[in-house]
Amino acid sequence: MLKKIGVLTSGGDAPGMNNAIAGVVKSAHAKGIEVFGIKDGYKGLINGWFTKLDSDFTLDIISKGGTVLGSARLPEFKEESVRQKAVDQLQKHGIEALVVIGGDGSYMGAQRLTEMGINCVGLPGTIDNDIVSSDYTIGFDTALNTVIESVDKIRDTMTSHNRAAVVEVMGNRCGDLVTYAAIGTQAEVFSPSESKLTEEEICIQVKKLADINHRSVIILISEKQFDAKALAKKIQEVSGYDTRATILGHTQRGGRPTGMDRYLAFTAAMFAVDKLIAGEGGLYIGIENNQLVARDIESTLNMPKPDRTQIINKIRILNSKQIK
Amino acid sequence: MLKKIGVLTSGGDAPGMNNAIAGVVKSAHAKGIEVFGIKDGYKGLINGWFTKLDSDFTLDIISKGGTVLGSARLPEFKEESVRQKAVDQLQKHGIEALVVIGGDGSYMGAQRLTEMGINCVGLPGTIDNDIVSSDYTIGFDTALNTVIESVDKIRDTMTSHNRAAVVEVMGNRCGDLVTYAAIGTQAEVFSPSESKLTEEEICIQVKKLADINHRSVIILISEKQFDAKALAKKIQEVSGYDTRATILGHTQRGGRPTGMDRYLAFTAAMFAVDKLIAGEGGLYIGIENNQLVARDIESTLNMPKPDRTQIINKIRILNSKQIK
Amino acid sequence: MLKKIGVLTSGGDAPGMNNAIAGVVKSAHAKGIEVFGIKDGYKGLINGWFTKLDSDFTLDIISKGGTVLGSARLPEFKEESVRQKAVDQLQKHGIEALVVIGGDGSYMGAQRLTEMGINCVGLPGTIDNDIVSSDYTIGFDTALNTVIESVDKIRDTMTSHNRAAVVEVMGNRCGDLVTYAAIGTQAEVFSPSESKLTEEEICIQVKKLADINHRSVIILISEKQFDAKALAKKIQEVSGYDTRATILGHTQRGGRPTGMDRYLAFTAAMFAVDKLIAGEGGLYIGIENNQLVARDIESTLNMPKPDRTQIINKIRILNSKQIK
Amino acid sequence: MLKKIGVLTSGGDAPGMNNAIAGVVKSAHAKGIEVFGIKDGYKGLINGWFTKLDSDFTLDIISKGGTVLGSARLPEFKEESVRQKAVDQLQKHGIEALVVIGGDGSYMGAQRLTEMGINCVGLPGTIDNDIVSSDYTIGFDTALNTVIESVDKIRDTMTSHNRAAVVEVMGNRCGDLVTYAAIGTQAEVFSPSESKLTEEEICIQVKKLADINHRSVIILISEKQFDAKALAKKIQEVSGYDTRATILGHTQRGGRPTGMDRYLAFTAAMFAVDKLIAGEGGLYIGIENNQLVARDIESTLNMPKPDRTQIINKIRILNSKQIK
Repeated sequence: MLKKIGVLTSGGDAPGMNNAIAGVVKSAHAKGIEVFGIKDGYKGLINGWFTKLDSDFTLDIISKGGTVLGSARLPEFKEESVRQKAVDQLQKHGIEALVVIGGDGSYMGAQRLTEMGINCVGLPGTIDNDIVSSDYTIGFDTALNTVIESVDKIRDTMTSHNRAAVVEVMGNRCGDLVTYAAIGTQAEVFSPSESKLTEEEICIQVKKLADINHRSVIILISEKQFDAKALAKKIQEVSGYDTRATILGHTQRGGRPTGMDRYLAFTAAMFAVDKLIAGEGGLYIGIENNQLVARDIESTLNMPKPDRTQIINKIRILNSKQIK
Repeated sequence: MLKKIGVLTSGGDAPGMNNAIAGVVKSAHAKGIEVFGIKDGYKGLINGWFTKLDSDFTLDIISKGGTVLGSARLPEFKEESVRQKAVDQLQKHGIEALVVIGGDGSYMGAQRLTEMGINCVGLPGTIDNDIVSSDYTIGFDTALNTVIESVDKIRDTMTSHNRAAVVEVMGNRCGDLVTYAAIGTQAEVFSPSESKLTEEEICIQVKKLADINHRSVIILISEKQFDAKALAKKIQEVSGYDTRATILGHTQRGGRPTGMDRYLAFTAAMFAVDKLIAGEGGLYIGIENNQLVARDIESTLNMPKPDRTQIINKIRILNSKQIK
Repeated sequence: MLKKIGVLTSGGDAPGMNNAIAGVVKSAHAKGIEVFGIKDGYKGLINGWFTKLDSDFTLDIISKGGTVLGSARLPEFKEESVRQKAVDQLQKHGIEALVVIGGDGSYMGAQRLTEMGINCVGLPGTIDNDIVSSDYTIGFDTALNTVIESVDKIRDTMTSHNRAAVVEVMGNRCGDLVTYAAIGTQAEVFSPSESKLTEEEICIQVKKLADINHRSVIILISEKQFDAKALAKKIQEVSGYDTRATILGHTQRGGRPTGMDRYLAFTAAMFAVDKLIAGEGGLYIGIENNQLVARDIESTLNMPKPDRTQIINKIRILNSKQIK
Repeated sequence: MLKKIGVLTSGGDAPGMNNAIAGVVKSAHAKGIEVFGIKDGYKGLINGWFTKLDSDFTLDIISKGGTVLGSARLPEFKEESVRQKAVDQLQKHGIEALVVIGGDGSYMGAQRLTEMGINCVGLPGTIDNDIVSSDYTIGFDTALNTVIESVDKIRDTMTSHNRAAVVEVMGNRCGDLVTYAAIGTQAEVFSPSESKLTEEEICIQVKKLADINHRSVIILISEKQFDAKALAKKIQEVSGYDTRATILGHTQRGGRPTGMDRYLAFTAAMFAVDKLIAGEGGLYIGIENNQLVARDIESTLNMPKPDRTQIINKIRILNSKQIK
């Protein structure tokens, strides 16, 4: 019978992580299990930065962005001797199992700890939606809304001035933020990570819009593809639109979590605690086909990435044809 | 080969309806099909209130709540003679098929029109999430976020003053707005349509929280269950908390659509136009298991409502146990 | 030389109160003065619910609505014997002076404490904008934006459906929330506290709009004038508009403080601490003509209320004339 | 007796411009005066891009950012021959007077047109708050809230990760956006246009915070002072904080106008129309000491800029001292 569990957040923070923490705390308390918050991810784990969390604590955090537990990088966690320190700290405090909230960078640590006797269950916390074993990740919905609100604002001023705007959005390996935001804002041109356009392709498309006197143009690009300012300059030369660049940057990582992020985070956390109580570990929780599922961490690593080509192409065709 | 289609919104409006309209317009235009907007639902249909929509129009509407086409009730549409007028108007204008955006109140009209030779495809537009053939309806996500933002604000002041608040939320036949919002805000007590509490049960729960000096209490109720003010008064008498009532009302029906509502509305509209182009009608589009599906309208009417009892009970158990 | 001061919030909470607390803490710390937060207003004062506040604390609270110190009513504070307890508690803890954040209900307590040897300076914290010695009060700007966002949402759905809406807004003695929101939302009819309309006048105005087929109508009323539902019913009978009622209630009292509320709260708090350091008390801070001023509490009580009649009448004239 | 007036927006767009347009339309209509909207500023003026505006139009625009009339640059308007075309167009359409909404770049045009017989009154529309004859400009309040919301989001993730962030804010000649946002967000370091810090000063301050293990640091800078990315890199080297750069860019120029921007824009527009009706021109409207005033354009150009040094220095002192 489980008496004490820990919870930590690892990797890039995401809105909804606090709701996952709250879900862990409340689910565990309902079964009489104590919960310890571990500060700054695996770093706090090896240093023993543990704090007992009470139920009231959850009310303070559920509308806050980021993670109140903090997060930090610890590449050394790949080494067994380092992980052993973590196991020692957990045993010293009587903590028998762990919920790990984070991206796939935290998978292996959770898997290895499980192998060393500490059952771990992971929750998909990342704004990038780049965890293939979950249709949506905790934080994606909030980040998407932040991007859409920002692009709507940029659209206001671009339309006022008959301009074009390059907007750089997060999502290095997964372009879902770009694709979903393009659909939500009717961005005329978009270049998600998995279906990049060349500078030339972008310029040609914007030029065509200039030729039919389209009032404003939004070009959404995933990070690490282009230098946004240089691209804007090139577009201006080719199309004639006065063109501006905005890099949304870390605004996308914060903010009050949306309803769906809160719901996913909280219910996935409940599910994770159930698994730990059942004595299971080495699992990653995902939402697939609108249902919570738990998969072996190993198996999730080999899942194929969903193919967005079809929807991306369909939207691009719509954007290329206009009737006045 | 289809040349002209119509689009109308029917029943209670919902954020995202404008994105569905935009999706219809852009999808049809990409295939060279003209789109006519029909003002005020079936009422405009029989009166011939039709306007040709251009592609630029879509940019103006995608960040707006409500429906720019307007909606109206027309109970007489049940009569065949009235529907014949609609068919006549459509034929006069050469409109061969129709996208109907609305709740299940608009199902039968779409089915009957299809039987009379006008192919209709329906899209699930309603904030209530009460269409059983779709996991989520267009407008639910925006309304949920409106409820959560409102409850967060109410929580601020209730916590400042050590008070309790009764908050009445929409959702007469389906309590999802209450249930999801309860999870998102950690409402201590909640009474969704499909799992109502009695006044006595609510008072007892609040009293227990008073006994452990819980700082603030949120009680979420679906509309048409209680008189919110009278309930607040009763709770105050039993629990000792100074208790206030708020009726969120029609604020829940408006507002800028969220990313997910925009995405669902736009992609479902694309799917609907594809069906019309394929010569199909009498269908309702839903999102099931994270995929768009088209079902016969007849069959959707007999689908069983998903059972929320399990999640509701689990959350209630969490709420009833607290560790300090 | 001052060494320890206290800060409390009193009366109805308002967004921005936390920024005022932060301003007190940081200003005092910059001069080497310790700050004690007093829980639940005057109630905590007599019970000695004091907590030393550190600088880091301020970062956690500045984007939160409500007051983290809590507020409570204590009518008995009018009695000298009760106030003597407060003075005793303060002296016991070595707290020499006090910042009181709240509405005019907290004036007299601050004045009496000053007379008993504890210098007090008040800050105008209330959403109602009903403190005549300040052009704006802390919380008004946030509440105004909450009202406007809510009315914008209600407008969306009313326009979709060709309806009228009665919206009840806070502000019992001062109708500024209604008047400013009416200007910001172009509410067709508005009835602020200081220039009430009769039910008949409202119905006549709405009827005129119905006669020219105006699409939607917003009627803003200050609280405690009408039964909103009954008024809606009456309007529906007279005008023919399907009419709905919403009571915004306590949503208006919470929420993240706006930029202006943060700025006013923080700078006014700095000013208050300066006054305490200068050995002054019995003062109330206000913003007049865009400048912070400190007035004797006694004198503020006799100031005439600013007359809004002119602007209200001008707006009503605009609303009554329309050109198509 | 005036029969027709025009309204245009000029220079950089700002939220609230649409409310000013609405105010012009409704005020003029109430006096039986027709209003013509002029597309794209002075450019539309010389090209005769005029559209008659009706009262209903105003309801569609008041919650929208940007300017529905559009804006454009026209440096040639300095030449009398170009302005003569504008006068000709206005006379051809019988438009006798003009409201010009824009920054001080539009002052001289309005003054010269007045001299050529077309009475013009200007309204201060710019997010920068850089018009010295007005305490606040239309658009500043909305932009300030956009900045604060963005910085709050950035703070969430910086605190989660123990990082520093450089945030570049608009306001080339006037640093009010930086200064007010610094007060609202407790940015630890800020460098507004009129009180710039050197790179070295910034690094030293951040280093001091690193030395006391301050969890996160926000550095707000006005545009055109630094290369934000290079500055972030330097700060990282000196302080040890992992440091990120965000350029808020054109998100600051759009968005739904706040209550105060709506109020200021609408009431200032009413005042402007009153002046035109009184036969006056060559005026600029401002809000000074919380009152609307009209000044000769010439005189506003020579007004001294308000000195923000005192408040900037006071806040910097607070930031440099912390008690734990």
